[in-house]
Amino acid sequence: MDLGNARSIKACLEEALVVGQPFHKEGNPASYIPALAKADPTITGLALCSAELGQVQAGEAQFDFTIQSISKVLALICVLSEHELDYVSQRVGLEPAREAFNSLLMLELNHEPSLFNPLSNPGAIVVTSLIKGHPAQKLQKLLNLAKKLTDRDDVSWDKEVYESEKATGYRNWAAAYLLKEKGVLDGNAEEVLDLYFKQCSIKLNCADVARMACVIGLDGNDPETGKNLIPRETARNVRTIMATFGMYNQSGSFAVRIGVPSKSGVAGGIMSVVPRKMGIGVYNPAVNDKGNSVVGLKMLEHISQELDLSIY
Amino acid sequence: MDLGNARSIKACLEEALVVGQPFHKEGNPASYIPALAKADPTITGLALCSAELGQVQAGEAQFDFTIQSISKVLALICVLSEHELDYVSQRVGLEPAREAFNSLLMLELNHEPSLFNPLSNPGAIVVTSLIKGHPAQKLQKLLNLAKKLTDRDDVSWDKEVYESEKATGYRNWAAAYLLKEKGVLDGNAEEVLDLYFKQCSIKLNCADVARMACVIGLDGNDPETGKNLIPRETARNVRTIMATFGMYNQSGSFAVRIGVPSKSGVAGGIMSVVPRKMGIGVYNPAVNDKGNSVVGLKMLEHISQELDLSIY
Amino acid sequence: MDLGNARSIKACLEEALVVGQPFHKEGNPASYIPALAKADPTITGLALCSAELGQVQAGEAQFDFTIQSISKVLALICVLSEHELDYVSQRVGLEPAREAFNSLLMLELNHEPSLFNPLSNPGAIVVTSLIKGHPAQKLQKLLNLAKKLTDRDDVSWDKEVYESEKATGYRNWAAAYLLKEKGVLDGNAEEVLDLYFKQCSIKLNCADVARMACVIGLDGNDPETGKNLIPRETARNVRTIMATFGMYNQSGSFAVRIGVPSKSGVAGGIMSVVPRKMGIGVYNPAVNDKGNSVVGLKMLEHISQELDLSIY
Amino acid sequence: MDLGNARSIKACLEEALVVGQPFHKEGNPASYIPALAKADPTITGLALCSAELGQVQAGEAQFDFTIQSISKVLALICVLSEHELDYVSQRVGLEPAREAFNSLLMLELNHEPSLFNPLSNPGAIVVTSLIKGHPAQKLQKLLNLAKKLTDRDDVSWDKEVYESEKATGYRNWAAAYLLKEKGVLDGNAEEVLDLYFKQCSIKLNCADVARMACVIGLDGNDPETGKNLIPRETARNVRTIMATFGMYNQSGSFAVRIGVPSKSGVAGGIMSVVPRKMGIGVYNPAVNDKGNSVVGLKMLEHISQELDLSIY
Repeated sequence: MDLGNARSIKACLEEALVVGQPFHKEGNPASYIPALAKADPTITGLALCSAELGQVQAGEAQFDFTIQSISKVLALICVLSEHELDYVSQRVGLEPAREAFNSLLMLELNHEPSLFNPLSNPGAIVVTSLIKGHPAQKLQKLLNLAKKLTDRDDVSWDKEVYESEKATGYRNWAAAYLLKEKGVLDGNAEEVLDLYFKQCSIKLNCADVARMACVIGLDGNDPETGKNLIPRETARNVRTIMATFGMYNQSGSFAVRIGVPSKSGVAGGIMSVVPRKMGIGVYNPAVNDKGNSVVGLKMLEHISQELDLSIY
Repeated sequence: MDLGNARSIKACLEEALVVGQPFHKEGNPASYIPALAKADPTITGLALCSAELGQVQAGEAQFDFTIQSISKVLALICVLSEHELDYVSQRVGLEPAREAFNSLLMLELNHEPSLFNPLSNPGAIVVTSLIKGHPAQKLQKLLNLAKKLTDRDDVSWDKEVYESEKATGYRNWAAAYLLKEKGVLDGNAEEVLDLYFKQCSIKLNCADVARMACVIGLDGNDPETGKNLIPRETARNVRTIMATFGMYNQSGSFAVRIGVPSKSGVAGGIMSVVPRKMGIGVYNPAVNDKGNSVVGLKMLEHISQELDLSIY
Repeated sequence: MDLGNARSIKACLEEALVVGQPFHKEGNPASYIPALAKADPTITGLALCSAELGQVQAGEAQFDFTIQSISKVLALICVLSEHELDYVSQRVGLEPAREAFNSLLMLELNHEPSLFNPLSNPGAIVVTSLIKGHPAQKLQKLLNLAKKLTDRDDVSWDKEVYESEKATGYRNWAAAYLLKEKGVLDGNAEEVLDLYFKQCSIKLNCADVARMACVIGLDGNDPETGKNLIPRETARNVRTIMATFGMYNQSGSFAVRIGVPSKSGVAGGIMSVVPRKMGIGVYNPAVNDKGNSVVGLKMLEHISQELDLSIY
Repeated sequence: MDLGNARSIKACLEEALVVGQPFHKEGNPASYIPALAKADPTITGLALCSAELGQVQAGEAQFDFTIQSISKVLALICVLSEHELDYVSQRVGLEPAREAFNSLLMLELNHEPSLFNPLSNPGAIVVTSLIKGHPAQKLQKLLNLAKKLTDRDDVSWDKEVYESEKATGYRNWAAAYLLKEKGVLDGNAEEVLDLYFKQCSIKLNCADVARMACVIGLDGNDPETGKNLIPRETARNVRTIMATFGMYNQSGSFAVRIGVPSKSGVAGGIMSVVPRKMGIGVYNPAVNDKGNSVVGLKMLEHISQELDLSIY
């Protein structure tokens, strides 16, 4: 792959924007969280970050949105930095799941409750519970990690979205209590969920997400300073888990059509990592029935094919 | 069926006690509610009530226990008295289930969320939510109904058991939130559950349970005064639903071996209704993996066969 | 219950016919078996049989139809006459199921493969395999039993329907092979299924079905001669199992609305047993999505309410 | 990655053999196919093939075994060469599954029956049915493809293994009939299954498997002649699908620990493809409860880490 220069990349992103934008009509802002339902489906952002090219952006790449499930990657990085992989994989699992992003089916059927993918909702709740420290410390760790990876000081979480999700996220409440009942979740379910809803409401923009993805792609090294921010092994493990289940039950077709380890959030963001090369952040709030941004998918497909980014 | 006289019935109950008692070793007090786990498995009670014979008792028939799921029958009587059967059967269902007493499997799979048996845990939570009035009124209605059916003034609920279940009944919490998420449960999940845990902790003894069963068996009429306490149609519907799913996923073999509409509670009580004839209450806290009292089942099998009580 | 005289019963059946007939528009002949799909939905039959009244009939009570799943009762009687209940209940189960009549869900989930209701399709396939003898003998036993219970010499099976089901009954084939794989089905799957499809295509009319039901209701005794044709205990066990799962996943609401142990067949027949009193046979080929005759249900509801037949 | 020279690679393979061999005690030859159960668990083979290095081998790399589910890759290549990806992905799916390799759970639950991974058993049965031609032609196509990719003239299938699987592969029979019933499988179920059992019994050795994998890794080009044998796009799609579900419900942890698109067979073979670099074939008949060769996994883990092969 020859990435060409920043100018041709910029043109590629602009094309992606033109190609993708009309597809917002095939999705809708997530309606099950009232505070998200009112998002403007005409806002689209796109950013790419690499050590060679720095930041290349298109559309509203500075528009802040809540990262939702992209925060699962932050929590997973925290936990894999603090615990052995084996410790973690005994509490959550490494297998993909084919159910919808919020299915409790396997939780109910499951005789090996550890086998929850850390990027599924039930698995992510367990991951969040494994961060060391008391609740306030855990949230601070996640915010600090986000600040470090994005090189941005003012990372915060959206109180309105957090409260909206906490009040209406019945399925996550059900998941947490089922996990308690199965003995997979230590500590207080309400506390873990409170933190989970807060981490989901962290606000970033496409440029931030692209930079974060770039660090993960560069084996944990900062694209500007080269300084190591995440252990090399953790970065690879996170990329691998993103590749197998980062796009929920669209992960398989995403792999075939786009082929880049990615993680989506139901507010419309997607973070994509091209190993050893770059990070990409996209945003548009209209999501499909799998919870993935429709415009985001189209833009990533365009970019992946133009730049031949598939890892497979 | 010739019920004989009170003397021969008394002998039959005493025999049942001798036959059943040793089987407490094949069960254990429910351990998932800490306050129940410490029950004494050597305490066994047995009572029969009919208009002709009055009360006939054996063992510790005056020993108070929390009625647990037997309270689902009280709530169902309340709701069927206040609403049309069709209204209720659109919110819960009338079909039996084969899963364990607390399974959420069908809740997750279910595309017709109304189809929850009112004597399953999720269905019973919905039934409790349908009682008219604010929470304190609802509880008062249930207590008043229990007082009326048992002709006992001092019916109360056990605060320790209530608190124990509320703190550790994770599965019921999960059920309530899933029901919220499916749109089947109106109102506040915490409030409904709070009431549900209270109704489960109502304390009665075998004599009370037998009398309550007798009223239900006599089409709602008081065995002593003949006064109608429950609408005739409600009494029959409750008996029918008890026959098809009152013993959880042991209802089918219970029908074959004992054949009397019954409802069990996980604290060890069983209420059995012989239509148009009598009511029976049994108690021993050692329950099997289906949540039914092992000694209770043996005693009922003995009595049903001796007195030829099967309705089939 | 006072059954009145044959004349008033006859009037009641005629009323039921008038009430029920229009409802054929709410169902359709079973389309998954091509040979059944062409049945005429305007043909309705109705018959009642008791020791006191003999046969009372209305509509086309002499019209022959394939009994389909009603044959499960014949096979169950055979098997319960040849084996202990415990032997049978370890191979099939006694619990009702809430799934659709042909669900394999529980077969796949099930860790206790024995727990298949003998009146579900997978359970019935196992029951058929338990009849003693080689395939031709087994079929002869079923036909002989049908002849004995109906007092009719010319009972036969419908070759066209048999071949149609054998060719297109994919789900039953799948069930048989899953049962083989779980080790629950002895012998040759093809042979058992061949017999199963033959027994389903046995042809009887409403009068036959009513007489058969009457014998089962009278503890196995012939309503005319009083001679015992089925062991008393077997008759009761069969009635009980019919009560809990004879109408598939409509068994619970059927119990509430009609309350009589019954078994339906997807060709449109229903056999109802009123313990110690009578048998009823109804037929109309338009079935609902549960596989039960819509007109049949309406007619039985009318008769049960008029004659107060519910056992509950 | 610097692959070093053939000599150091040979040393690496020999080490892998020493590391992996003892682990055969943690698995067992697949017992559900009688003809496989008698395999010798001390036989281990290992081969690597690349354009630069040619063949490098260790252990019994020339020992023939039946490729079993590795044949799913051959069938998928055939079908993706004959049909558009969209056509195929509407009949099978692209999502991974978390169930065991032979689960029918999702088939029964599934409301979108197309969503079967082509490397799961039900999906692979559909894929085989999609090969154009009559049964004998289809088998010939698969054998010809195997000959072309392995550059070996005498590729054949094992009659004894084929017959053993055909007689006892009840679950595959059940899957085929369920697929028929859901309308997902065209044509005659017996014919498709017959072909499926034949393709599973194709015999190859590790050297063959490594060469086949190498062609897939080199975008379909022959490592010796450079001639294109498989369309470039098909090769990538096959690699992607192997990455997401080639190791059944061990695919996720395999990705984390080994990270190379692979496909296992229950007879003990594994085919691994390193995109743009090489192919690897390993064999040892002792498989774990997921159906994957235990020694094979250990050897691949050693090689992947030593040569840094993970694609993530």
